[in-house]
Amino acid sequence: MAAQAEPIHDIAHLGSVELFTPKPEESLWYFRELLGMEVVHRAKESVHLRGYGDYATSTLKLTASRNAGVGCVAWRAASPQALERRAKALADAGLGIGWTNGDFGRGRSYRFRDPDGHTMEIYFEEQKFVAPPELHSNLKNLPQKYTGRGVGVRRIDHLALLASDVEANRKFATDLLGFQLREQVRYDNGKTEIGSWMSPTAIHHQLAYVVDVKGAHGRLHHFSLWVDNRDDVLRAADILTENGVFIEAGPSKHNNSQGFYLYTYEPGGNRVEIYSGSFLVTAPDWEPVTWNEEERGTGTYWGATLPDSFIQYATPDVEGKGELAKTPEFPVFF
Amino acid sequence: MAAQAEPIHDIAHLGSVELFTPKPEESLWYFRELLGMEVVHRAKESVHLRGYGDYATSTLKLTASRNAGVGCVAWRAASPQALERRAKALADAGLGIGWTNGDFGRGRSYRFRDPDGHTMEIYFEEQKFVAPPELHSNLKNLPQKYTGRGVGVRRIDHLALLASDVEANRKFATDLLGFQLREQVRYDNGKTEIGSWMSPTAIHHQLAYVVDVKGAHGRLHHFSLWVDNRDDVLRAADILTENGVFIEAGPSKHNNSQGFYLYTYEPGGNRVEIYSGSFLVTAPDWEPVTWNEEERGTGTYWGATLPDSFIQYATPDVEGKGELAKTPEFPVFF
Amino acid sequence: MAAQAEPIHDIAHLGSVELFTPKPEESLWYFRELLGMEVVHRAKESVHLRGYGDYATSTLKLTASRNAGVGCVAWRAASPQALERRAKALADAGLGIGWTNGDFGRGRSYRFRDPDGHTMEIYFEEQKFVAPPELHSNLKNLPQKYTGRGVGVRRIDHLALLASDVEANRKFATDLLGFQLREQVRYDNGKTEIGSWMSPTAIHHQLAYVVDVKGAHGRLHHFSLWVDNRDDVLRAADILTENGVFIEAGPSKHNNSQGFYLYTYEPGGNRVEIYSGSFLVTAPDWEPVTWNEEERGTGTYWGATLPDSFIQYATPDVEGKGELAKTPEFPVFF
Amino acid sequence: MAAQAEPIHDIAHLGSVELFTPKPEESLWYFRELLGMEVVHRAKESVHLRGYGDYATSTLKLTASRNAGVGCVAWRAASPQALERRAKALADAGLGIGWTNGDFGRGRSYRFRDPDGHTMEIYFEEQKFVAPPELHSNLKNLPQKYTGRGVGVRRIDHLALLASDVEANRKFATDLLGFQLREQVRYDNGKTEIGSWMSPTAIHHQLAYVVDVKGAHGRLHHFSLWVDNRDDVLRAADILTENGVFIEAGPSKHNNSQGFYLYTYEPGGNRVEIYSGSFLVTAPDWEPVTWNEEERGTGTYWGATLPDSFIQYATPDVEGKGELAKTPEFPVFF
Repeated sequence: MAAQAEPIHDIAHLGSVELFTPKPEESLWYFRELLGMEVVHRAKESVHLRGYGDYATSTLKLTASRNAGVGCVAWRAASPQALERRAKALADAGLGIGWTNGDFGRGRSYRFRDPDGHTMEIYFEEQKFVAPPELHSNLKNLPQKYTGRGVGVRRIDHLALLASDVEANRKFATDLLGFQLREQVRYDNGKTEIGSWMSPTAIHHQLAYVVDVKGAHGRLHHFSLWVDNRDDVLRAADILTENGVFIEAGPSKHNNSQGFYLYTYEPGGNRVEIYSGSFLVTAPDWEPVTWNEEERGTGTYWGATLPDSFIQYATPDVEGKGELAKTPEFPVFF
Repeated sequence: MAAQAEPIHDIAHLGSVELFTPKPEESLWYFRELLGMEVVHRAKESVHLRGYGDYATSTLKLTASRNAGVGCVAWRAASPQALERRAKALADAGLGIGWTNGDFGRGRSYRFRDPDGHTMEIYFEEQKFVAPPELHSNLKNLPQKYTGRGVGVRRIDHLALLASDVEANRKFATDLLGFQLREQVRYDNGKTEIGSWMSPTAIHHQLAYVVDVKGAHGRLHHFSLWVDNRDDVLRAADILTENGVFIEAGPSKHNNSQGFYLYTYEPGGNRVEIYSGSFLVTAPDWEPVTWNEEERGTGTYWGATLPDSFIQYATPDVEGKGELAKTPEFPVFF
Repeated sequence: MAAQAEPIHDIAHLGSVELFTPKPEESLWYFRELLGMEVVHRAKESVHLRGYGDYATSTLKLTASRNAGVGCVAWRAASPQALERRAKALADAGLGIGWTNGDFGRGRSYRFRDPDGHTMEIYFEEQKFVAPPELHSNLKNLPQKYTGRGVGVRRIDHLALLASDVEANRKFATDLLGFQLREQVRYDNGKTEIGSWMSPTAIHHQLAYVVDVKGAHGRLHHFSLWVDNRDDVLRAADILTENGVFIEAGPSKHNNSQGFYLYTYEPGGNRVEIYSGSFLVTAPDWEPVTWNEEERGTGTYWGATLPDSFIQYATPDVEGKGELAKTPEFPVFF
Repeated sequence: MAAQAEPIHDIAHLGSVELFTPKPEESLWYFRELLGMEVVHRAKESVHLRGYGDYATSTLKLTASRNAGVGCVAWRAASPQALERRAKALADAGLGIGWTNGDFGRGRSYRFRDPDGHTMEIYFEEQKFVAPPELHSNLKNLPQKYTGRGVGVRRIDHLALLASDVEANRKFATDLLGFQLREQVRYDNGKTEIGSWMSPTAIHHQLAYVVDVKGAHGRLHHFSLWVDNRDDVLRAADILTENGVFIEAGPSKHNNSQGFYLYTYEPGGNRVEIYSGSFLVTAPDWEPVTWNEEERGTGTYWGATLPDSFIQYATPDVEGKGELAKTPEFPVFF
């Protein structure tokens, strides 16, 4: 038996996600007042936010835009050397865009695209969050006070992107970024790859690619935020419902990932998940769990079947041939 | 500034812990009936158990012994190459004992001692758990049925060892094993290292060294098992109390690690923690959080002060000069 | 303003429910092994069980029968005098059946029928549960040890009966039994009474009448058991699913009653609810909350729409004209 | 056997509690911002508040005062007739003060003192809460929106008063008010009544009398607010600690009442409990559970021993001979 190559450990974790929103003020209300995130910076048409447990200064960037969707997905490198290695590998693969000086709170970053066209970047240097006095926690290992406002999401957890070719994007993530493949849904006796869940950390998945049933490109399925207990997800359902926010599915338990989930649409239209449970994977030789049509079933372990919109709807919303579904008016600025 | 060395990723995670018990039958009752673990193997004076979510066949080994305490602590390597590298480094450091064919369910293992004298080993090859029919889960990504018996611990989490020289053992873990230092307690204006919490994974800590106030060697402070929600820890308190098991402290919340804990003594005398909460660390440049006398305070974030026994008692129990505190009768065999 | 009559306080609480089951052994497994109830008595074709927090000796009676359904529903009187008063009122109303010496653990009981034909009885004298040594709790105010086996239901909570004429049965319960009306569902601008929820205690409802869409009589919609926290309902979903028990709906939150629910079918076919949350009503002048078609909506506050089976299925199961849907083989005896 | 008198059902429930506070602004911050209560009315030196699930307009009245302590404790009668009956009985017993036109949101009330000197009143007519638009809940059976701010206490639960003669006050509550005795602590082979827990509802206790070890009169031990789940109590501990509020004991579980508790001091000095768990009592012939010195033990079922301050401290705070411990400056008005 030939010696197996050692796993790549060059990506440390998901760093931040940028969401486009045609309703920036309402989106900001949702993330700040209902989910309990904090605003740390404003720049042009963007607002930077954070969960109370995120160590980085900002982990969510809301950008006013004509359509909902995902902007730049940022990954933190494990070291300066790792950043250089990945940048070279991505450039060699023809996916590179180039170096930037970095977004708010970060050093130089290497920007690129995944095969489906989503924008991503890798960076190493990052400003740790220093809380202003009113957000200072009396827990020395907590970067920020737990305010008790709304849901109180602790940190970002993962995101799921749609892709026309799941296999190509999955290979990109495992081979070029070094993510470990955790679970898959495969139909047609394993021939059709419907979705793949991957991670650079012990967190079950930080990136998923799921097939885009409308054949569009660069779209977002959902962005997920973590709370510590299942009870917090139930409490989130109470808060969101009291405030008239649409809950698409859950609270229920997935079979895939064992995650305890609740899916809502933030006012801009992006699907947001409030998430807990799941399990950590620390095994270096984890064998991906594969589900076929029958096993995947309702998409839940218990709880109602995921609705059809869970398959059909993503942002930006498109018609059958991948054209934008509607052209909302341009939003007011922040 | 000289280029910083890249972090070592050679240890994947804590693999298993062996506990010595002078009351093997009672200890087995505690772990199986109260904590809900499963017996997977019996060999001579040992019984191998597992949590329902552990992917490996066995993660806890109970061994009948004259005194309570910790036996071999096993770490899984990240790859076959990583195993060789660590074995060489440990041998070079003069800590090596040598290669074995491996314990139940494992391939060859390299055995060594930490500076304080605790026995450890590293291995890579491991048998994944295949559940017998009665323990088959209908969740494809769960290695074993969740039986609903007792506390239902999901997996092992970490252990805390006593050491006469915390600094020497902390350096061993960070420099030779590649663990990341997460938190420390330092007294006397930082001059005296009281305890250090470290991890090879995103789990906050999988190994802690705390000063042995009695100057003994090779002792165990506690072994910790994970449940998914804080409510499960409360339920554990109900179950343990109904069964007359001593709860030393908690349920309460630590300041250090933010863990939600409950400490009990299993019938053999070893301190066992039922644990949830805490937080994951994925930052590659995590700056260790250091607590002084005053900040460490009661040892809790909220909840009662940790009792004096939490400092004074460990296994094996010793008198002032490190001599065994008592000589229990030799236990019956399993 | 004429003086209002004072409320009747003659019924203290729901005492016990008898369930018929064509699969007595499987039903027993469900209530004992999965829900964690205890068997306290066996007599002929019946088994008597209890929740760990029930103060009475037995609160659930399982009786082997050709068809699933509900047997006798027993209510405890508030005093010996109250028992006599209610017996007289029921006899005067032509609903009486007569006095019996009482079921297991009880004194004389007055048996009667509700207008829809369900069998009920009232009693006052009752044997308090005295736990055998192995079930002795070390909590002096807990009648029985919390065993930690399975779901661990604390006590019975309520039951919902189907009725062809909800209004007539609701008036029976409020006027003859003295229950307080808590909530109603009324369609057609309030003209059609679809369901009514009532209680003789501060518990939100202990008896509900819901319209029988198949025009049958004497049927059971569901029987409900209480757990203390929402997290226990989620844990119940895990346990039931792992054991292949069908979950019809939930865990989710009702709008009506605010109850946090999970509906399953026990193996005999009866719908069983695992229940928590809701709210207590202590107001003597509580104004019933009425929901119309639109407000009732999905039947949930959040979570998926209640499935069609929730309306169509009850026990015994009947075809369109109220004939039994199937004739299962006669069950084995206990 | 002579016929036993029937139980009195004239008191429906605890209606409201008035707390005196020398720091009215800080106390208001505590109850509104941290516990999440709403202000519904201001009058002179008082502010009226409510929990989101209280059906009455106001259930807590904060009154600026030189010293902390309890003002008027109001009980709702079960009917107009019940109000008259109780007023007569109290007057006959020489405890009456007289009729008033009622506090904010209420009709005429009969004011009296308990034997220890605490001020109380009974009323029947009460204004139900009608939420202003910004507090309107989309749950039709919830009187007010669940705002998600802070702890989010649902409703008031109970209060514990100190008394020099527990027996006399206990008899007053059971014989004159008709409360059911639920539990007792008795020392000296049952001869010394240390504390008694009673209730007019199915709630385990709404009034407790505990011996005043300093021989003072009219003092408050604690006032208790309800949350639905144990997890909410843990979350309260996080919120209170982050805001520098002193936690005297808990979160832990009482043996007496099985309540899951957390005791804090609101800024004015009154002890406030955040409470869940416990159990309902619907048995008409409940036999009081009695605990002796040994059984009462630490005061907890699990968790740390209640601290000495739990016995020694009450409001107003007094020195050994019942004199006020300190004379704080008179507070600013609201």
